Amino acid sequence: MSHLLEKVRQEKPLIHNMTNQVVMNFTANGLYAVGATPVMTHAKEEVEEMAKNASALLLNIGTLTTEQVEAMILAGKSANKAGVPVVLDPVGVGATTFRTTAAKQILQEVQIACIRGNAGEIANLADIDVQVRGVDSASDMDERQLASEAYKRLQVPLAITGATDIVINKEEQVMISGGHPLLTKVTGTGCLLSSVIAAFLTVTEDVTSAIVDALSYYSVAAENAATNQIYPGSFQVAFLDQLAAVDGEEMDKKKSRIRSFE
Amino acid sequence: MSHLLEKVRQEKPLIHNMTNQVVMNFTANGLYAVGATPVMTHAKEEVEEMAKNASALLLNIGTLTTEQVEAMILAGKSANKAGVPVVLDPVGVGATTFRTTAAKQILQEVQIACIRGNAGEIANLADIDVQVRGVDSASDMDERQLASEAYKRLQVPLAITGATDIVINKEEQVMISGGHPLLTKVTGTGCLLSSVIAAFLTVTEDVTSAIVDALSYYSVAAENAATNQIYPGSFQVAFLDQLAAVDGEEMDKKKSRIRSFE
Amino acid sequence: MSHLLEKVRQEKPLIHNMTNQVVMNFTANGLYAVGATPVMTHAKEEVEEMAKNASALLLNIGTLTTEQVEAMILAGKSANKAGVPVVLDPVGVGATTFRTTAAKQILQEVQIACIRGNAGEIANLADIDVQVRGVDSASDMDERQLASEAYKRLQVPLAITGATDIVINKEEQVMISGGHPLLTKVTGTGCLLSSVIAAFLTVTEDVTSAIVDALSYYSVAAENAATNQIYPGSFQVAFLDQLAAVDGEEMDKKKSRIRSFE
Repeated sequence: MSHLLEKVRQEKPLIHNMTNQVVMNFTANGLYAVGATPVMTHAKEEVEEMAKNASALLLNIGTLTTEQVEAMILAGKSANKAGVPVVLDPVGVGATTFRTTAAKQILQEVQIACIRGNAGEIANLADIDVQVRGVDSASDMDERQLASEAYKRLQVPLAITGATDIVINKEEQVMISGGHPLLTKVTGTGCLLSSVIAAFLTVTEDVTSAIVDALSYYSVAAENAATNQIYPGSFQVAFLDQLAAVDGEEMDKKKSRIRSFE
Repeated sequence: MSHLLEKVRQEKPLIHNMTNQVVMNFTANGLYAVGATPVMTHAKEEVEEMAKNASALLLNIGTLTTEQVEAMILAGKSANKAGVPVVLDPVGVGATTFRTTAAKQILQEVQIACIRGNAGEIANLADIDVQVRGVDSASDMDERQLASEAYKRLQVPLAITGATDIVINKEEQVMISGGHPLLTKVTGTGCLLSSVIAAFLTVTEDVTSAIVDALSYYSVAAENAATNQIYPGSFQVAFLDQLAAVDGEEMDKKKSRIRSFE
Repeated sequence: MSHLLEKVRQEKPLIHNMTNQVVMNFTANGLYAVGATPVMTHAKEEVEEMAKNASALLLNIGTLTTEQVEAMILAGKSANKAGVPVVLDPVGVGATTFRTTAAKQILQEVQIACIRGNAGEIANLADIDVQVRGVDSASDMDERQLASEAYKRLQVPLAITGATDIVINKEEQVMISGGHPLLTKVTGTGCLLSSVIAAFLTVTEDVTSAIVDALSYYSVAAENAATNQIYPGSFQVAFLDQLAAVDGEEMDKKKSRIRSFE
């Protein structure tokens, strides 16, 4: 089995999460289920030291303050200097001016290995003034066009997640189907996914593969979890179980079904 | 089906929660299960903008700091100006001077659409110096007398929750039975209920009905969840499931059983 | 039944937790399952008042800031003055300079009734420069030697938890086996255990027995929970259930199996 998931499980990378207060517990439990080791600290007094010793750093702006922006930039720069990959999750960009400004400032001062967000967040981050429609829509800008335009402007590998996920990096565009609508009924599933991408980035130099494998794995776990559950409380429990249960072998079998390349 | 629950599910109101760190995750998942859309931000830098664009604002003082009091007042005033209803959950009022003072200050500076708390919290908030006893008690002040006296002093619609819930607004007093003692064994069930009231307030002008419907719905979900569970871990999961499973039709059938009017 | 667990359930001690943001919800639900009453406040404005009125105080440095160190010391001193026992959980000591310094400062300024941590944390706190190995290891310092050396230096009752737990207090050393590896796959199980020790300390003057009983109870709950679960999401739910289900009678039957004395 050569799947990156198995490498994560062997190496148990330490993922430093500077994330919002709503999802801290779920993120930590999710990373344990994946096979990684979570750590959460946000104090300016220690984030530089923690970030440089971690395998990856996750910056999530869900519950942000001015002080946290500063701490994230300190941590990000420390990670950059040590060659530690940094993932940015621009939660709610566009909802307030403070949030949008903060995300752009982080992006300007820290070198980011991957941004994961939904179509609206990515559009706002890239200053694309458009009502984003579904990927199957006949509108003047579907999500694949958005991905291309956002990548052109941001020049950072993107994971744009939704009913269908899109990964874009340089010339490549990969679409990942699967997953399950119940993911949208459990808070923090997007946030955790960003942390999972961070974990996968620690085991390969191939950024596109890391992101695509992380998203594929997440989709399969969600599908499996939804097999016997229709309500969100039970689904959340089953999803954590499936993040632990799914292995590289299952991924290798299913990946041709859920991925399509341009 | 005319039940307000169904209107919440259709309109998916955005509920801005400024709540304590213990219950953020549970509150977000609970609001998703109800059919509303949670957002959590607490920074002074953005709460005014977020609150005025939300459908309702929830202020919960469970883990409070001086800075958070200021932010809550900013958000509350912004919500007031925009006509966005504000619910106050005065967690632990009476436990410390700081907490009591903060709750009263918020109440003075922000126009509140509903206060939800237990009998002790409401008594402390209204400066009623009494040992509150159960609603069936023969003491000199039972919970219904407390409700009347507290309403007279506070002049804000009240939801006083306990083994039996009491809603009081102007001349009206409604009692809601049902629910389940396991609710007291899961942290945040009171806090989430305040957010659910906020969600119901967004779909009607009739404040009393909004509160009564929210409490009735919550009672039914708890009863259903307790049918097959006797322990708190499983009950919490089942309760989130039931918040999603219960619908307007079930509510219409059960409401005559669980509500009684003065 | 004379088990301390039953006394906790009768007395429902109020445990004031100043703990990290990742585990607040799990800690509160766990304490309810045990039969105690959790309260969480961290603001300098109120922690002194809260701590002195609580039955026990828990200080956990998982997500620390300079301000939180100050607040913990204020609360700790207030608890000391009122005779309220204080438990310290030195999460991640050794990971950053800030964290190590903060833990030592708290230890210097506050009288601690018990420190609970894993072997690495305890070694770092006691300035023991050693790679700690498992308790069955043939290395030059196994966990029992570490316990003795750390106790000699710190002069505080210690609960060193791992595959086998060690409790050391003065001349006594007790080992507790049992438990389950799935505990390491759920975030906050160590943190909650520290709060459970705090709860047990409120019902007896015998510190060693309080710690040993708390650890034994936790081990049994974990074993029971793992009987039917192999994945972490379901295990977490089952573990909360078992914390509520295990009673003094079951503990009395099992304690001779899981405890061994030097």
